[in-house]
Parts: sequence; structure tokens; C-alpha cells
Amino acid sequence: MPGPRPIVTLTTDFGLFDYYVAAMKAAVLRQCPEATLVDVTHQVSAYDILAGSIALERAVDAFDAGTIHLAVVDPGVGTSRRLMVAQIKGQYLVCPDNGLLTWAWRRWGPRAAYELTWRPTEFSATFHGRDILAPAAGRLAAGHPVATLTQPATDPVLLPVAPATNLTEGKIIHIDNFGNATTNVGHELLDEKVVVYVHGKKLGSVRTTYADVSRGHALALIGSSGLLEIAVREGSAADHLGLEVGAEVGFQ
Amino acid sequence: MPGPRPIVTLTTDFGLFDYYVAAMKAAVLRQCPEATLVDVTHQVSAYDILAGSIALERAVDAFDAGTIHLAVVDPGVGTSRRLMVAQIKGQYLVCPDNGLLTWAWRRWGPRAAYELTWRPTEFSATFHGRDILAPAAGRLAAGHPVATLTQPATDPVLLPVAPATNLTEGKIIHIDNFGNATTNVGHELLDEKVVVYVHGKKLGSVRTTYADVSRGHALALIGSSGLLEIAVREGSAADHLGLEVGAEVGFQ
Amino acid sequence: MPGPRPIVTLTTDFGLFDYYVAAMKAAVLRQCPEATLVDVTHQVSAYDILAGSIALERAVDAFDAGTIHLAVVDPGVGTSRRLMVAQIKGQYLVCPDNGLLTWAWRRWGPRAAYELTWRPTEFSATFHGRDILAPAAGRLAAGHPVATLTQPATDPVLLPVAPATNLTEGKIIHIDNFGNATTNVGHELLDEKVVVYVHGKKLGSVRTTYADVSRGHALALIGSSGLLEIAVREGSAADHLGLEVGAEVGFQ
Repeated sequence: MPGPRPIVTLTTDFGLFDYYVAAMKAAVLRQCPEATLVDVTHQVSAYDILAGSIALERAVDAFDAGTIHLAVVDPGVGTSRRLMVAQIKGQYLVCPDNGLLTWAWRRWGPRAAYELTWRPTEFSATFHGRDILAPAAGRLAAGHPVATLTQPATDPVLLPVAPATNLTEGKIIHIDNFGNATTNVGHELLDEKVVVYVHGKKLGSVRTTYADVSRGHALALIGSSGLLEIAVREGSAADHLGLEVGAEVGFQ
Repeated sequence: MPGPRPIVTLTTDFGLFDYYVAAMKAAVLRQCPEATLVDVTHQVSAYDILAGSIALERAVDAFDAGTIHLAVVDPGVGTSRRLMVAQIKGQYLVCPDNGLLTWAWRRWGPRAAYELTWRPTEFSATFHGRDILAPAAGRLAAGHPVATLTQPATDPVLLPVAPATNLTEGKIIHIDNFGNATTNVGHELLDEKVVVYVHGKKLGSVRTTYADVSRGHALALIGSSGLLEIAVREGSAADHLGLEVGAEVGFQ
Repeated sequence: MPGPRPIVTLTTDFGLFDYYVAAMKAAVLRQCPEATLVDVTHQVSAYDILAGSIALERAVDAFDAGTIHLAVVDPGVGTSRRLMVAQIKGQYLVCPDNGLLTWAWRRWGPRAAYELTWRPTEFSATFHGRDILAPAAGRLAAGHPVATLTQPATDPVLLPVAPATNLTEGKIIHIDNFGNATTNVGHELLDEKVVVYVHGKKLGSVRTTYADVSRGHALALIGSSGLLEIAVREGSAADHLGLEVGAEVGFQ
């Protein structure tokens, strides 16, 4: 249950050029004037549901029980896709049912899914983020029980991306702003004897921090998300090594 | 009259690279520590008063009575241009008198204009946003009556852009981050028999949502602002159709 | 001592593409749910400590005593570099000890430096901003005395950039988003008879505001930071005059 100043985070592909994010914030604050609003990112690439899903999972990791996460990457607005509320790690995620839940759903538990069935009296056909999802997030923040807005649901849409269960499944799932590449390989699969390869290049064993190699050199290390990351000290691993989302990572 | 946590929005062409936005927020919070600050956008193109005006109108539409909107796109800083406070739809708009009020003034009422005559003891010649407009917005948020800061004014500067009164006046007024083009044509001028053209290309009748056409196809629909919009499903109408602000839109 | 809604500002080179800023905000809010968070900028060029230092100084100038400033441009994360808390102008600055304090330290007093020795039970090797600096800033915001987190320190790392003590030392220290160039020359060194030169081009005497020249013309004026600035009215001085950080400014 949200405290006296509930936190509502926002993750979208709206960019910061337009008023769309502010319109969603207005809708949240109308329902819950006491909310503390925190932007996760609005620079998910347009319609990139996987990247949105990873940003959303990072928000779930960062915040505590009671936080509400509003995520809108919604190429299917106006189709019959469902709207969802998921409860994961004691937090609520409010988003279209198009795969945005994937990474948080697969990494964290306990979890439960609900279909957001609440609708305002009027809403546009093109901006459900503002007209349905944001007011719903605001109501959850204001303490409305989830049951007043939803019905239990099964089978949320999940993308075919999952934490690796063994080293043969390792691949890159995200490239960040510094050019660091995050993989789906958790630190628990790795030990100090493993040697990491990408695109045929040997990165050596798993290091502790960027400063373990000299400037401009590539390395593999456990990133702040607890996942194996490929980086270049004070440089861009993506540019240096030609990395892209989906590339396989090898181990020996 | 502002509530216990008054909302102050900010719309500028300052970008997010520099400290300028934070300096304005400091000035607002100094006057009204309880304010909830909401960024509308700081990525209005430098000195683009029309684009700033449209973002500001979108904020007025999104928020409720009592909200304070601070807008600074101010190529004339240091000239004798007036500073304004407008009251539109029960909200206060605080900005230079250079046309920024245009779109909100023309779309919403009731409305009234005041010249902001209040000045702090000291202020720079180059950053009236920080030194005059933001503290004035903060004072309004803190509940100072508008009459203590202003005097009644007439004839705010308005750009020659207005909502179309009939279909011969249709034109593009804004291109958003997704490449969608907003026109000045309200939904009330349109019915299901109208066919929309732009640059000689027939877009067909007015649709309800992006998903009414297949991916990559252009369409005309009523956008979330209540205005006719030209879009490409999961693509950029601006790139696809070569659209720019000012282009005429035809109807048959 | 922070008030009932202490202000915490954030200055980083993280960009807005990733979740890193939100992760730091989560850590601040966990310690101090009442904090008002204000972004200064997250678009410091990657690893550009001087630019970060100048943004941080601008925040110290803008805000009042009791404000907490969290700044993270941290190429040395994982090395033995210290973490610092500085008290400048009654405000706290929390950052790595790599030169980020430079510009605020040199422009403002009184000042004192402390080494941040507090550590959480667990923390990553790659994201001290989230794991150490942000919780420390949150604790200061929540009213924990600085002595509970730090020990007195001397000699914070300072970059070799300082306010000019006379006109022979004038140089460009920052280029802003509009292309305006800020110098290290304070207004107190200048009078109306001085003529300003850059790259051999004569800019004339020091003007009051952009509107003192016609559109597209270059000028020198006292910017909103109290320092000499080189600008082009409604244009980019950096592009027009080929300016870059470090370029010398001449006077006659």
C-alpha cells in the first residue's frame, strides 16, 4: 500500500520534445496530488518494447514495495490489445499488454497479473497512456485497491527474451548510453575461471570494475544490474566491438 | 487559487544540456517550496515561438484550474518587450509578450491578460526567465494575488496562426517527435465523408486510430489534441510525406 | 540544516536514455521521502569533469543554504579515488574527488571539505553514484549530521581552471546549448572602455544584452553567471566564431 507520498515512475518512448509526458503527469497528479513523480526514461527508441521492458525492470529493481510504475511504449494503441496491471516485488506496473512486462516478470517474484478493465467516461483512440493508464496509475497511487480497477488475468504477453539458465544461452539484450552492452547472463552463472568472447574477440575473465583494464580497452564485468556487461573503459564497447542487441556471447 | 501543492509547469527552448532550467526551478521553489514542478518541454527549437505556444496550449489543456505555467522562449530578452501574465481556463500563464500566448489564447476561454510589472530589486539583462518570470510564477503559486504583480493589459502579441474556421484554412502547425503532423483543423469541422489531401496525396477519410491502416501507411485522424493529425502508422509522416509547418492541407 | 522539504539536485553525465538517474533518485528518496529532486543536467559530455564542475557551480549559485547537490561524473569508479562532501555557501556537494568541486570551490566561500567515509553494507564496484553517493546525499537531506558520514579532509582535487585574476588570464571555460561561450572573466575585472577580442576578431566593448547588436552579430556581454560571455544574437557564437573550451580571450 502506498505511503503518504507514493512514488510513480514513468517509462516511455515519447521523447522529451513534446508535451506527452506532461499530459500523463497531469493525469497522475489529478488522481494523486501527493505523488512524487520520477522519470525513468522517455528515450526508449520508438516502439522498442524490449528496451522499454528492460528500463521498466531496472525501475522495479531500484524502488521499493508500494511504488507504481507507468510504462507506455504502445504501437498497438487503438487495437484490441489488453491493458495490464502487474504486481511484482510488491510494486505495481501499469502498461499495455504487449511484452513490456517481460524482463521484470522474468527476473522478479512474487508476481501476479491483472487486466486493467477500468475506463474513464471518455477517452481518445490514440493516447491511452494519458487517458487510461496514467489515471489508473494515479488511482493506485491514491490507494484505490487494484481489484476496483482490474480483473485477474493470466498469460501476459512476454517477449522471447529470458535470463540465461546456462552459458550457452548468453546474448546481448541492451546497449546503454555509454555504449556498454548488458547481457542476459547473471553473475551467479559465472566464476573467476570463465573467459568471455564476443564476435570472436576474447575479452578475458570477468573483471570487477572498469579500472581493471587500461583506458580504451575492452572488458567483461558484472554491471550494476547484476548481469554480465561488456564495456570499454572510458569508451563505447558498442562502437569498438560492433555490438548490437541479440549478438551472442561466448564462454570458455 | 492554488491548492496546498500548487503545480508549476515549465516550457522553454533551453534544452537539457545546461543549468538554465534548474536555475528557474530554484527561483520558483524559493517563493513556493511546496510547488510540484512539471516539465512540459525544454526542447522547443531555439527561438521558435509558435512551437512554444503550441506546447504551452497543450499544458493548459492537460492541467486544471489553479495551475501556473511558466514559458520562456525569449529572443527579445533585453528589449522593451513586455512580460505577461494571462489567465486562461482558470490557469495562469507567465511568459514574455512575444506570441507565446497565441495558441492557448485562441483555443480556450475565458481569458484575461495582465502586464507583469513586478520586478525584483536586482535582475540580469540576459535571463529574465530566472530573474523575473520564475519568481513571479512562484509568487502566484504561493498565493499572491495577480493584482499585486501586474496591471490589466490589452492586446497581447498573437502570431498569425489560428484554429481554422472552415476547411479552406487548414494547415500544419506542428510536427511532433514521432513525425506526426498536427493541423489547425478541429474535429468539429470534419465528418466521415470528408477526404483529406496533403501535398497532392490523398489520405482518405478521417480514421479513428493508427491501427486503422497497415504499418507504414499514411492516414489522417483526430489526434489526442482534438485536432486533425496526419500520421504514418509506426512511422514518420513528416519524413514519408515531406511535411513541414505551414503546409496547406486540402479537403474534398 | 535542511527544511521540511529539502532540495536535492542532480548533475551527471548519464544522459537521459538509461535508468541510471532514476536509480539514484530511488536511493535519495529511500533515505528522504520528502526531498524535492531537481535535475541540473544529465547531459554533461561523458567523463567531462570540467563541464560537470561548471554545471555544479551554477546549481550552488542558484540555490540557497541547506540544498544538497549530488554530482556524478566518475570515470574513476572502482579506483581508489576518494568520495567527497564539500560544504560551500551553506550547501552540501556530494561527488567523487576528481575535480568536480573545482569551479564551485574556487568561486564561492566559505567552504570546507570532508571525505565521505560512510559505506552501505553492500555496494557494486561500478555504480557508486547509486550505491554510495545518492544514499549519502539522501541522508544529509534527511538531516543526518555530516560528521556521521565523513571525516574532515584537505586538498580536494581541483582542475587547473580558475577565475581570472587579471585580463591576461581570460579564456573560454564552457560552451552552452545556444552556442554562447562563457569565460573565466568576472564582471568586476571589466569596465566600459575594455575592448574584447577572440581568435583575432574584435567584438567591441562589453554590452548589456543580446539586443544591443543586430540579429546574427557577435558581441561580448556579462552573462547571467556574472562572467564575460561571447554570444551571437539569436545565433551560435561557437559555430560563428569557431570557439572551443580553452580558447584565449584578449582585451585592450
